Amino acid sequence: MRIAFDAMGGDHAPTAVIDGVLQAAKSWPDTEIVLVGKDEVVTPVLERAAMDHLSIRTATEVINAEDEPVRAIRRKKDSSMVVGCEMVKEGAADAFISAGNTGVLMAAGLFSTGRIPGIDRPALAPSFPTVTGGKVLVLDVGANPEARPEHLQQYALMGSVYVESGWGIARPRVGLLNIGTEENKGTSLQKEAFGLIKELPINFVGNVEARDVLEGVCDVLVCDGFSGNILLKNTEGVANAVFVKLKEEFTRNPLNKLAAAILKPSLKRFASSMDYKEYGGAPLLGLGGAIIKAHGSSDARAIYNAVRQARLFIERGVIRRISEDLERS
Amino acid sequence: MRIAFDAMGGDHAPTAVIDGVLQAAKSWPDTEIVLVGKDEVVTPVLERAAMDHLSIRTATEVINAEDEPVRAIRRKKDSSMVVGCEMVKEGAADAFISAGNTGVLMAAGLFSTGRIPGIDRPALAPSFPTVTGGKVLVLDVGANPEARPEHLQQYALMGSVYVESGWGIARPRVGLLNIGTEENKGTSLQKEAFGLIKELPINFVGNVEARDVLEGVCDVLVCDGFSGNILLKNTEGVANAVFVKLKEEFTRNPLNKLAAAILKPSLKRFASSMDYKEYGGAPLLGLGGAIIKAHGSSDARAIYNAVRQARLFIERGVIRRISEDLERS
Repeated sequence: MRIAFDAMGGDHAPTAVIDGVLQAAKSWPDTEIVLVGKDEVVTPVLERAAMDHLSIRTATEVINAEDEPVRAIRRKKDSSMVVGCEMVKEGAADAFISAGNTGVLMAAGLFSTGRIPGIDRPALAPSFPTVTGGKVLVLDVGANPEARPEHLQQYALMGSVYVESGWGIARPRVGLLNIGTEENKGTSLQKEAFGLIKELPINFVGNVEARDVLEGVCDVLVCDGFSGNILLKNTEGVANAVFVKLKEEFTRNPLNKLAAAILKPSLKRFASSMDYKEYGGAPLLGLGGAIIKAHGSSDARAIYNAVRQARLFIERGVIRRISEDLERS
Repeated sequence: MRIAFDAMGGDHAPTAVIDGVLQAAKSWPDTEIVLVGKDEVVTPVLERAAMDHLSIRTATEVINAEDEPVRAIRRKKDSSMVVGCEMVKEGAADAFISAGNTGVLMAAGLFSTGRIPGIDRPALAPSFPTVTGGKVLVLDVGANPEARPEHLQQYALMGSVYVESGWGIARPRVGLLNIGTEENKGTSLQKEAFGLIKELPINFVGNVEARDVLEGVCDVLVCDGFSGNILLKNTEGVANAVFVKLKEEFTRNPLNKLAAAILKPSLKRFASSMDYKEYGGAPLLGLGGAIIKAHGSSDARAIYNAVRQARLFIERGVIRRISEDLERS
């Protein structure tokens, strides 16, 4: 299989991206990796690490965080994002991964690979770690802020297929993010979506409150892009607040510092269990091709994990399976 | 001033409620407290603690967590919640506090005291602790899940007046919860609300992302009841997940347990800084009377803090000030 990687996108690009990609290339010699980006960025990588399964594809333009999506893909046709998505469309790559601007990646993916027939709006689908040591796929977290009930129904189906095929969980538990567990809770969006999801041949466990998400009460959490984005960013914000507060307490006096030093390996393990970087990227589920968004602040480890995820995505034929399920339902 | 308290509502009622109310009565002899509830619950309290400024008001019925709001207030006219709200309406109490069913409290409050003229939908407005040691008022967190742009505008005005008068913060920074900081972000609800809030004579700081809320970037956070509820419950869920994970790590081996014992006072301070109980109840802002919702799982300390908050609410004339500001604008 062949995975294209955007060398230009992300807060720590290109250094962290290149480091992560090289680690991945070393781990999986069976995976061809194509690094896409500006000549002066990608060419030196080949000199640094010559491997048969590592190649480059130059793209003269770069998309910025501030670029307006549709405008950007029209004007910067030779940017790494547009080129990477085009490679997937043309079959020159089986997947494309980028840590760049999410809106632009979605627009470029839509423009190049289109949507799976039957899907109106693709969803950004990251996974969250749960306290039980598992994870939960959350979709959508912002690709489509103004969702309609039928979009949520499509997310439920796609999420179920993805978790079943990609994570190997049989009949994954699918929940709907809501402000109460009773069937009639929420706005008209959730009420209508509840009825539509109930009709699907999936394991729908009903409404799930935000408080219970990390308890692992479901494997797939369906939500509109606005609420999902609030959930995602609030989770990051609270986790960050916790670290700030803990650090304050643990450095308060010499005795605390000593105790904290003893706990250091445990605290590290704790931090890593709360860390998005361990959980790879977020697929843009519903696109016609395998296009995966890595977190904007990805470090080398996060990049490495995104490659691992793309491999599974391709191997398990997630897109084909979603198409088949849509045809059946 | 006289504060009525629902002895029957909350997960730990009546014991925790009575304990908290008695602590409050001891602290503030200038505040008359009226405990409202079933005869067998409230009468023994007078025998246990005879204080001139503590009295009871019996109510024969009890509202349950499952009760449907409008039906409950119609059928259970002699319940502690309906009686407490009626006391506020009749001037028999300056404020009423309950840890019971939020929906029923809102319905009973609306039925008894109505709304402040110019306010379409009252909001449930709790405060969240920030990492800077301050707090942020968040409204609405679920009283009105299906909000319209003008509701958000009203929340902005009420929140600003409340924080200025109740917390003594001059020209509080008011933010709008959104999925990005740029003006054009979010759904049509946020886009329209942004324009409306900008017109108000308040210190509007624009859109605020969920990730930044606990950083203390604003004093008042305006949101629709659905997103606000997700934010509130997710914050509780993540904080809880953190405690579960930390406990796991800190009890992993004898050395860790020893180190954790040294850090115990610090960990307690940390837990208390993340704890809603320290931050009193949530006013139902926009009602014609001072009606305050204490957290459902309130312990005695949370009850005590809710009384403290009600005192401020009354002393500072929050409702009168909101009315005056609405007349001016």
